[in-house]
Amino acid sequence: MGTRRLRRHDGGVRTIDWQDGHIVAIDQTRLPAELVILSIRTVDELIDAVKRLAIRGAPALGVAGALGVVLADGDRELAERLKAARPTAVNLAWGVDRVLARPDAQLAEALSILEDDVTANRALSRRGADWLLDRVGGRVDVQTHCNAGALACVEWGTALGVVRALQERGALGHVYVDETRPLLQGSRLTTWELAQLGIPHTLVADSAGPSVIARGMANAVVVGADRIAANGDVVNKIGTYPLALAAHRAGIPFVVAAPESTIDAATPSGSDVPIEIRDDAELTHVAQTPISPKETPALNYAFDVTPAELVTVIVTEDRTLEPSVESR
Amino acid sequence: MGTRRLRRHDGGVRTIDWQDGHIVAIDQTRLPAELVILSIRTVDELIDAVKRLAIRGAPALGVAGALGVVLADGDRELAERLKAARPTAVNLAWGVDRVLARPDAQLAEALSILEDDVTANRALSRRGADWLLDRVGGRVDVQTHCNAGALACVEWGTALGVVRALQERGALGHVYVDETRPLLQGSRLTTWELAQLGIPHTLVADSAGPSVIARGMANAVVVGADRIAANGDVVNKIGTYPLALAAHRAGIPFVVAAPESTIDAATPSGSDVPIEIRDDAELTHVAQTPISPKETPALNYAFDVTPAELVTVIVTEDRTLEPSVESR
Repeated sequence: MGTRRLRRHDGGVRTIDWQDGHIVAIDQTRLPAELVILSIRTVDELIDAVKRLAIRGAPALGVAGALGVVLADGDRELAERLKAARPTAVNLAWGVDRVLARPDAQLAEALSILEDDVTANRALSRRGADWLLDRVGGRVDVQTHCNAGALACVEWGTALGVVRALQERGALGHVYVDETRPLLQGSRLTTWELAQLGIPHTLVADSAGPSVIARGMANAVVVGADRIAANGDVVNKIGTYPLALAAHRAGIPFVVAAPESTIDAATPSGSDVPIEIRDDAELTHVAQTPISPKETPALNYAFDVTPAELVTVIVTEDRTLEPSVESR
Repeated sequence: MGTRRLRRHDGGVRTIDWQDGHIVAIDQTRLPAELVILSIRTVDELIDAVKRLAIRGAPALGVAGALGVVLADGDRELAERLKAARPTAVNLAWGVDRVLARPDAQLAEALSILEDDVTANRALSRRGADWLLDRVGGRVDVQTHCNAGALACVEWGTALGVVRALQERGALGHVYVDETRPLLQGSRLTTWELAQLGIPHTLVADSAGPSVIARGMANAVVVGADRIAANGDVVNKIGTYPLALAAHRAGIPFVVAAPESTIDAATPSGSDVPIEIRDDAELTHVAQTPISPKETPALNYAFDVTPAELVTVIVTEDRTLEPSVESR
C-alpha cells in the first residue's frame, strides 16, 4: 500500500475518497504528528487499514465497505472478510451489502454512498443544532467523546458536525474533549480538528468527563454512534455510557448524532450487538512501552451500551428520535 | 536525596518508614519497572517527593506529614509549606498538625501515627469485609479505582485491605482494576500489588469500569478516599464518581474504605474541598512523548466528588457509616 505525505491539511482533503481506481484515505494512526495519505488498492490492504484503525468512525467505515466491494470486484468471499474486519459498527456491513446488491452498478452505488455521507452529515448536524438551540438555548457548552468529526466520515462530521453547525449560528460555547483511552482518538484527532476549525476546546481525562458535567461546565453531551439498536440503545466508543449516566443525573441532554445507516432495525437491543474486544496490549502498553507489570491480564472492550432511557435524542438526516421519552 | 535499589519486593518493605533519623519510602513513580527506595532527609526533599507522587495515597501522606515535622524539627514555616504540597487529601495536614501539637514528643507522636496506620487499616478492612459478606454474600467481585493498597499506606491497604480480608475468608472472586489516567496508579501499582498477593485481577480502561458494573461482572465497588466531608461526600481520585453512578444504577454497593483521619468534620460538603488541578502535560504527554497537538489546552482535575447519596457505606477503623441512608 502506497503512502504520500502532505505538509499540511489543506481543508480540501477528504478522510476517505476514490481516486484513479483506488481508495485514498488519511492514516488516522499517524495524526496529529503527521498527515499521511494511504493509497489502498486491494481488499487485504483495506482490511488491514480498518483493523488497525487507520480508517475508523462508523460513517467512514460504511464508505470503506462500499468502496471495498468495488476493489473486490464483487467477490463475495472477500466482501464477507471485509465485513468481519470490525464487528460492532453496523455501517461497515451496511456499505458492503448495499454495493453487493447492485452488481450491475457497483462503482456508481459506492460513489453515491460516499456523496450521500456528506449531505447526510450536513442535514443531521442542522437538525442537532436546531434541537439544542430549542432545548438548551443561546450558548451550548458541549462534552464529547472519541472522534465523531470529519475524520470519522468523508468530511464535516456527525457529533462535531453538530458542534460546527452551532458555531455557524454563533451558539457554541466551549467543547470538552475526552482523551478516549486506549487509542486516544480524542487527544489525537478531535483536538486536531477543533484547532483547525478555531473552536475553543479543552482536553480532559475520560474519567473527568462526568465531573465536567456535574460541575455545570457542559450543558449538553453530544456523541456519535457505532450502532443504534431498534429499541434506541446506543452502542458507541467505550466511555460513552459514563457520560450518559452523568448527563442524566445533571439533567442535561444526551444527544446522539448519526446517519440513518447506523440504525440497525434488525437488532432488538444493545445487548444483542457484538462488542469488539481489542488487543490487551493497547491497555498494557503506550507506544510499545509497557505501563503495567509483565503479563497483567487486561480486558479491552472497544464499545459500551447506553440504554435508550438515558438517550435524550438521536438526530439523523431524516429524523429526530427521543428514545428516553419513547421507552417510558 | 539518596536512592537504593532492591532487586525484588520482599514483602517486608513498608511503603514509608522511619530509619536512622530519616524517612525511607518506595518511589512509586518507578514502579512497576523497578523498586527504588528513597532516603529523605530534608523537608524540601519530602515536598518534592509528595508533589511528584513518589509518595502518594491519603494514609501514607498522613504519615509523611507527621514524619516531615520531625525532619523540620517543629519549624512552623516548613511545616506549612509541607501541608500545602498537595491540597486535597486532608491526611497530610492532619499528620502535620498532630505532631506540631506535641512539641515535647514529636518523634514519638509521628511513630505512633505510623504504627496506628497499620492497625487502623487492618481494622477497617475487617469491617469492610464483614459488611460485604453480610450484604453481598459468598463471592464478592470488586471494581476498584486508582491504588488504595499497601502502597497508599504504611502497609496492608484500605480498599485493597478489604479485598485482602475477603481473600483471607475465601470470599473474594475477581478484582477489576481501572488504569487510572493520567498517572496510571491502577495499571502500575494496583496490578503490581495484586499480582504479588496472588489475587486474580483484570486491568480495564477507566472508561470501561462502568460497563464492567453494568454487565454484572462486579457486584461491589470498593475504593479509598482522599477526604470525606462532614455530610458524607467523598473526594477521591478522578474517575471515582463515574463508578458511583454506575453502581447506583446497577444496584450494587459503593464502599469507601478509609481511616478516621480522612474524615474532615470541619468541611461541610464536597464542594468545599479544594480540588487539585495538576499539570496539563500529564494529559498531553505520555513519558515525554506528545499525544495531542502542540498547545492543546487541557484541564487535569486530580480528584472528583461523589455525593453522599451515592455512597452506600464508609468503613473506618471505628465506624460503619451509611451516608446514602443518612442523607435521605
